[in-house]
Amino acid sequence: MSASPGDLVRRLLEGDPRALARAISIVEDRLPGARDIVREIYPRAGRAPILGVTGPPGAGKSTLVDVLTASYRREGKRVGIIAVDPSSAFSGGAVLGDRIRMQRHSTDDGVFIRSMATRGHYGGIARATVDVAELLDASGSDVIVIETVGVGQDEVDVVSVADAVLVVLVPGMGDDIQTIKAGIMEIPDIFVLNKADREGIERLHADVKAMLGFLEAPHRPLPCIVRTVATTGEGIEQLHEAISEFLRTTTPDLLAARRRDRGRQRLIGLLRERVLDWTTGPGVGEAFDGAVEQLADRTADPYTAAARLFEKLAPAKGSR
Amino acid sequence: MSASPGDLVRRLLEGDPRALARAISIVEDRLPGARDIVREIYPRAGRAPILGVTGPPGAGKSTLVDVLTASYRREGKRVGIIAVDPSSAFSGGAVLGDRIRMQRHSTDDGVFIRSMATRGHYGGIARATVDVAELLDASGSDVIVIETVGVGQDEVDVVSVADAVLVVLVPGMGDDIQTIKAGIMEIPDIFVLNKADREGIERLHADVKAMLGFLEAPHRPLPCIVRTVATTGEGIEQLHEAISEFLRTTTPDLLAARRRDRGRQRLIGLLRERVLDWTTGPGVGEAFDGAVEQLADRTADPYTAAARLFEKLAPAKGSR
Repeated sequence: MSASPGDLVRRLLEGDPRALARAISIVEDRLPGARDIVREIYPRAGRAPILGVTGPPGAGKSTLVDVLTASYRREGKRVGIIAVDPSSAFSGGAVLGDRIRMQRHSTDDGVFIRSMATRGHYGGIARATVDVAELLDASGSDVIVIETVGVGQDEVDVVSVADAVLVVLVPGMGDDIQTIKAGIMEIPDIFVLNKADREGIERLHADVKAMLGFLEAPHRPLPCIVRTVATTGEGIEQLHEAISEFLRTTTPDLLAARRRDRGRQRLIGLLRERVLDWTTGPGVGEAFDGAVEQLADRTADPYTAAARLFEKLAPAKGSR
Repeated sequence: MSASPGDLVRRLLEGDPRALARAISIVEDRLPGARDIVREIYPRAGRAPILGVTGPPGAGKSTLVDVLTASYRREGKRVGIIAVDPSSAFSGGAVLGDRIRMQRHSTDDGVFIRSMATRGHYGGIARATVDVAELLDASGSDVIVIETVGVGQDEVDVVSVADAVLVVLVPGMGDDIQTIKAGIMEIPDIFVLNKADREGIERLHADVKAMLGFLEAPHRPLPCIVRTVATTGEGIEQLHEAISEFLRTTTPDLLAARRRDRGRQRLIGLLRERVLDWTTGPGVGEAFDGAVEQLADRTADPYTAAARLFEKLAPAKGSR
C-alpha cells in the first residue's frame, strides 16, 4: 500500500477517484486496514440514496442504468455505480467486469463505476456491496446505483440494502417470466417495464398490475409501474421522477425501517464472519476438522457436533 | 404431532411415505423434534448418491429429471426428488410447488417428490436441502435428485452438496448464455445440452468445449458433455450412463473431499444458526437492537458494534 489508511481516507473524502478505487479494493478483499477505513468513513456516509436495480438477464438493465445516470448527470449529480456480475471460475472475478460498459460516462469524473463479482466475498456479496456503497457515498456520490442480474437469494440480498428497489422486466419472456416474477415480487418499489416498444407490453403490464392486486402490504405504498425504452431514452425522465417521488414521499418510518434492516443484516453478517474466523483460528481449527471427519464417517450427527463446537465458542450460551 | 419422534423415525426407516413427508416438514420448519429426527436417522443415511441438476429457466430441467427418473425406475431404483423453486411473497412458499409436475410418477410409490421454496429457510436453503436429502436416503431412496433453477449463489450452494452436478444448457439463449455459463462453470461434472434438436446446438457444444479448454482442474476429471432431447427421451440412456460412469470412476478422494466440504458447510451453517439464535435470545436481543440503532444513526460503525457484540458472546475469543 502506497499510502497510510489515514491519508487514503482523507483523499477519498476529497473525492479522489484513485483513492476511492484503492479503498474499495482494500475493503472488498478485507486487506489490512479495511476495518479502519470503514470506521473512519462511516460517520461521513449515509447521505446518498441507494437505488437497487435488478431483473432477469436480457432485460436491458445496463442500458437503463446508463441512461438513468445521464439523466442524473444533467442535474449535476454525481453517480456511483456498483455492477454486481456473476463470477467465473476462469477469471476468478467478474466476467463482465472488464466489458466496455457505459462508454459514454467513461471520461466523466462525475460517474464512478465499479464491477464486483458475486463470489468470493467472505461474509457475502451483500456485505461487500454495502461497504462499497458507503465508500462511494463518503467520496461524494449523490446517488448510488447497485445493479445486479438474477433472481437468486443472493441478488435479493444485494438489492434489499437499497432505499429504492427497481425491478426491470421485459415483454415476451414467455412462461419463464412467471418464475422470474415470483422470485422478485416481494422486493420492488418500482417496476420498470423496459423494451416497452415490443410486442407483449400490454400483457406484461396487465400481468404485473394483476399481481400487485394480490400484494398485501398495508404499511407501504404499492409499487408503481413505469414503461421505458432504454435504448432510445423513452420514459427515462418519468422513471427519474418516479424514483424521486418515491424517495420523497416514502414515510420516514419506512426508510428508517429499511436502514435498520440493513444494519441488522450487516451486524449478523459480521458476527458470522467472526464465527467463521473462529472456526479456523488457533486451538479450534483442529476440533472443527475433527468434527468434519466425524460427520463424513457418520460417527457424529451435525447437530450434536455443532452443539459441541458452539459450547467451545461460548460455554453455556448454547440455548439448546 | 400424531406420533412420537421415535415412532415417526421407525416408520420413516421402513419407507412409509407419510412418515417421510411429516419428518421432512418437521425438519424443514425446524419444529420441535427436528434435531432428534436428524440425530436418529443420520447413521442410517449417506448411502444414496445425490445428483444436483441446475441451469437457467426454460432449460427443460423438470422434463429432464422426469425422464431420468423413469430411466432409474426401469432399473428398479427408488428415486427421491427435491425440487427447489423460487419463492413468492404471495404464497409464502414454493410457487411452483403445487404445479402438477412429473405426472407420470404420481402414482409410483418408488418416486418421492418434494418441492421446497428457496426463501424462509432459517440457516439457508442449502442446509434444509441436505437435511431433506438425508431423510430421503434413510427412508430408502437409491438415488436423490436435487433440481434447482437459477444462477445465483444460493443455487450454487444447493447443488454444491451433490455428489454429481449436472448443468443443463440449451441452444439459442443468445448473449445471455454468456452470463449464465459464467455463473455455473465452476460447478458442473456433466454438461447436459438439452433441446439438442434445436438450431444452435453445434455452436453451444463448441462454446462449452472451448470454455472447458480453459478450465484448470488437474485434480478432477473434465466435465463431460451429453446431448439430450428430454421431451422425446433422446440421449437419456447416455446421460444415465455418464452419471453412473462419473460416480464409478470419480476417485474416492474427490468424493470424500466433497462430503467433507458438505460437512464443513453444514457445521458452519449450524453454528451460524446458533449465533443468530443467540443475537435474539435472552439478555442479548436488547444489546443487539441497541447496536442496530447506533448503526442507523451512525453513532457506531458496524465493525466496532460487531466486535462489542462478539465480545459478549465469547469473551476474549474475538481475534481482532
